[in-house]
Amino acid sequence: MNPRPALVPSVSDIDRLVAGVRAGERALLARAITLAESKRADHQQAARTLVQKLLPATGKAMRVGITGAPGVGKSTTIDALGSHLTGLGHRVAVLAVDPSSARTGGSILGDKTRMAQLSADPNAFIRPSPSAGTLGGVAAKTRETMLICEAAGYDVILVETVGIGQSETAVADMTDMFLALMLPGAGDELQGIKKGLVELADMIAVNKADGDNLARARAAAAEYRAALHILSPRSPNWQVPVVTYSAYTGDGLAALWTKVVEHRDTMTKTGELAARRRDQQVKWMWSMVEDRVHGRIASDPTLTAKLPQIEAEVADGRLSPAVAVDQIFAALKW
Amino acid sequence: MNPRPALVPSVSDIDRLVAGVRAGERALLARAITLAESKRADHQQAARTLVQKLLPATGKAMRVGITGAPGVGKSTTIDALGSHLTGLGHRVAVLAVDPSSARTGGSILGDKTRMAQLSADPNAFIRPSPSAGTLGGVAAKTRETMLICEAAGYDVILVETVGIGQSETAVADMTDMFLALMLPGAGDELQGIKKGLVELADMIAVNKADGDNLARARAAAAEYRAALHILSPRSPNWQVPVVTYSAYTGDGLAALWTKVVEHRDTMTKTGELAARRRDQQVKWMWSMVEDRVHGRIASDPTLTAKLPQIEAEVADGRLSPAVAVDQIFAALKW
Repeated sequence: MNPRPALVPSVSDIDRLVAGVRAGERALLARAITLAESKRADHQQAARTLVQKLLPATGKAMRVGITGAPGVGKSTTIDALGSHLTGLGHRVAVLAVDPSSARTGGSILGDKTRMAQLSADPNAFIRPSPSAGTLGGVAAKTRETMLICEAAGYDVILVETVGIGQSETAVADMTDMFLALMLPGAGDELQGIKKGLVELADMIAVNKADGDNLARARAAAAEYRAALHILSPRSPNWQVPVVTYSAYTGDGLAALWTKVVEHRDTMTKTGELAARRRDQQVKWMWSMVEDRVHGRIASDPTLTAKLPQIEAEVADGRLSPAVAVDQIFAALKW
Repeated sequence: MNPRPALVPSVSDIDRLVAGVRAGERALLARAITLAESKRADHQQAARTLVQKLLPATGKAMRVGITGAPGVGKSTTIDALGSHLTGLGHRVAVLAVDPSSARTGGSILGDKTRMAQLSADPNAFIRPSPSAGTLGGVAAKTRETMLICEAAGYDVILVETVGIGQSETAVADMTDMFLALMLPGAGDELQGIKKGLVELADMIAVNKADGDNLARARAAAAEYRAALHILSPRSPNWQVPVVTYSAYTGDGLAALWTKVVEHRDTMTKTGELAARRRDQQVKWMWSMVEDRVHGRIASDPTLTAKLPQIEAEVADGRLSPAVAVDQIFAALKW
């Protein structure tokens, strides 16, 4: 008789997973990530132990976040850039934060189709977005997947996001550099930079700088550059560069990556990289505290019955938020 | 014998305060705000009751946030703009969010000196920043003060911020419009717009457009305008205007205010104002839930002893945030 469900890994199972991940065995890597993505409480507990054991082997990868509106050629870019990087000898993991992926089931087939070259590359590992519900949940699982991939020896992690709502902030909060992909404008219309993106982007890259689009891409880059020049840089040591490239021809991709490396070197030298990661880790802990509080509130039957009315009264201005908070904490008996 | 401390208002005291505030009596208004700003738990409880009772009389004012770097002439601007508004028949309350004010004691004398004209105006009410510790605490008290002032019949609320850290976001989250004051550049140097500000500002106003500075102020405005043009507007119905004015001569202040009114009218017509306020109120409730959780954590003796080490280990990457969160909740016995 087995006293625990067969699917819950024992301590020795976790140790075997740790060894397998560190040896870079793809099957065990995939199993470890599946464990981290599971919604079962016992799996989550096992995943926490797993990640804690892998922690000493993490932190050495370059973590690059990539965003771009639909149609910008994000998959083609990651396919081409990732292949360029494996050509340079890197091992590349491609992850995603897409809180809407629950709808499409986060199809691996889709990602493999979207990134045909990279998905056949033995030095690349592509994992679609976990299909958990909330952004906080999706981001937390992607973050743990990133650490697992680092422990498996992937030294470049590309985290893509669809840029819906706060998902860009979540990706910027787990990466060392955040890259925004843009398109040359159609005709005179320049594609606007989303305001929130200005805050996050460490580099802007205009795609489709090829053939008839070349001049337009360069003009767009010049305009973005002029606009960014008016903004105070986040780091006194880094003026956000605006580059052009073509994912289709590959032109400019090597120069784009050189800029990423330059950013990494500058941030390392100034100590900003280490500070950013420390901040990210502590921030991540506090956001998990908040997620867990929200989880408790959402799973309290008395409160879930009352909450819609409380929120509606607060929104309408009939109930003071301070009084509403009293009601919430009273219901939780905290 | 009085069974409760004399300073805690009874229900009938609170009712008298409510009536006094609604009648616009300055002494009772000041007393109500002092109650809201008190750190004593019994005062806070009384203040919650007070604000809840005043709530039906709130919500009719124009709430304008104002930010600007030191030296931009923020006080002179508010003094001149506020006097212009009382001249138009408005009743103006000036509040502040400055989490650093604990250092200076949030001196009223200072504010009265800074705003000589407005502080002598019977239709204006100036209240310095509460000197509570955290930004969350300062912002919550300023927000309650705003509601109390609205109930007292002030129909324009100007909330100024020093723009340190997240204080601008806090002010934007409690106002209908957020105005950023800028200076013309010294020589060729244009003053950079802080990135975070681009996200928040509904209007940019360049001060000191007078005398020798006039041409420079106009040139700066044109550059800011060009830069903002590249950014996608937050609202499809509002392109962030860039105006010039002089707080010293008063030139452009009437036009500046006309733009504020135009923003208000547009946002009201499109329903965005109502939506923004609903969002703000619900967001405020949730941020108070988080503040209270942080308060519980900060006041737990076991945890406060452990927390510095937990945070340090998380920052160093030795402890997984998920495991740290387990430790925090275990200590709280939640």
